[in-house]
Amino acid sequence: MTAHIKIIKVGGNIISSASVLQAFLKEFAALEGKKILVHGGGTLATELAEQLGMAQQMIDGRRVTDADTLKVVTMVYAGYVNKQVVSGLQSYGCNAIGICGADGHIITARRRTSPADFGFVGDIDRVDTDALSVLLQHFDTVVIAPLTVDESGQLLNTNADTIARSLAVALAAAAPCELIYTFEKNGVLQDVEDPGSVIPVLTAPLYQQLREAHRIFAGMLPKLDNAFLALREGVGSVYIGPADRLKALSEGRCGTKMIL
Amino acid sequence: MTAHIKIIKVGGNIISSASVLQAFLKEFAALEGKKILVHGGGTLATELAEQLGMAQQMIDGRRVTDADTLKVVTMVYAGYVNKQVVSGLQSYGCNAIGICGADGHIITARRRTSPADFGFVGDIDRVDTDALSVLLQHFDTVVIAPLTVDESGQLLNTNADTIARSLAVALAAAAPCELIYTFEKNGVLQDVEDPGSVIPVLTAPLYQQLREAHRIFAGMLPKLDNAFLALREGVGSVYIGPADRLKALSEGRCGTKMIL
Repeated sequence: MTAHIKIIKVGGNIISSASVLQAFLKEFAALEGKKILVHGGGTLATELAEQLGMAQQMIDGRRVTDADTLKVVTMVYAGYVNKQVVSGLQSYGCNAIGICGADGHIITARRRTSPADFGFVGDIDRVDTDALSVLLQHFDTVVIAPLTVDESGQLLNTNADTIARSLAVALAAAAPCELIYTFEKNGVLQDVEDPGSVIPVLTAPLYQQLREAHRIFAGMLPKLDNAFLALREGVGSVYIGPADRLKALSEGRCGTKMIL
Repeated sequence: MTAHIKIIKVGGNIISSASVLQAFLKEFAALEGKKILVHGGGTLATELAEQLGMAQQMIDGRRVTDADTLKVVTMVYAGYVNKQVVSGLQSYGCNAIGICGADGHIITARRRTSPADFGFVGDIDRVDTDALSVLLQHFDTVVIAPLTVDESGQLLNTNADTIARSLAVALAAAAPCELIYTFEKNGVLQDVEDPGSVIPVLTAPLYQQLREAHRIFAGMLPKLDNAFLALREGVGSVYIGPADRLKALSEGRCGTKMIL
């Protein structure tokens, strides 16, 4: 496969609002060319865990995926969210197939054991691009829930930003790839309180400066680390920007473009 | 594709016991040739609905799939059960991909409106055997959760026995197919109280007699109706028998073989 491929990640805050999600899916369905959609669903998983009265164990602000939590995220990510997204895309004429990273061993991971035991959490070892290409050739898009599997068949909860980056890097070995992180903000902001302060082009040195000055922090750090890692590992273009302006974002007309 | 294909259904009572399910998956993984696994999950869905305090609406003993119930079955069937089965098969060396009937519009249905409104329940219109063949060619098996989608992108809860039959009938047009219903019993019984009273060969006329004499009733009726419909519509062999003796069952060494 040598066609240009877009790998797009959509975050939990978009997914948890039905109307916002539908607007995003409509734009996604209309995007031309081969495309993969990686979704999260953490907000909805937390809601379900609360409804079920489950205590959430956290280490350093990160959720521990114990056996019950793994069951909840499997239900929410691979079940409810994945099939809502698939059927939503189909309603806009995009014939989607939905899987998680475990299916067909497409994303093989190993359980993370350091710096702490976060439970059933995986770090990605390998992406099967042949299997992914088979799906991309036959269907309009592949929708991927953030679960992976280890060599022994153990399901593992895996960060969706990292999955999107790993897929883009693996596919970039054979075809030009574009990695797009979408969320509820307009892009990477100079000032997190000012939605208008989008940085149109974020270079690696500028990212380093802003990071050291604590102008970029919290949830943006793993996303941006993934973004720059993708560039260093051969992904042609990486964007971060608003889920409700996906077409403009994919054309570089809004959001933040990362360059090395 | 002209290779022989086995379409195997495993029911909710097998799935709800982890050890029984693992024994079944081990036998399934070892079966030679192309194979599709259709699963239910009703017992686990009912459990989750109860945990969430949802009232189950029933009409004539059948569950009504309202919007909340559709959400629960999507989580349980397409999420938890599907990925448990996929990763379980992988642990036995069978590289499974798990989807539901909605994925890739592989099973298109329409909402049932008579004899009563059962909510988001689908009757199957069409099976996309090309898409299924692509998956069967690339992966060791395809695991299918009992959800379908209508032309407008509405997810629909769909009987797993009927899905198995519809897949077998559709695939039988191009390749020899064997349809196997597995459950917790030894086969179709002469006397429901006597596990040893298995009917080795059930002909259509004998089925009619037993049915009229009320010797076969309740949950067996839709299963057997599907079995005989499959035979009439071109499926070569149909068996019903014990999930824990899958290999013997697929070779006709136990259970009940249906013939016209």
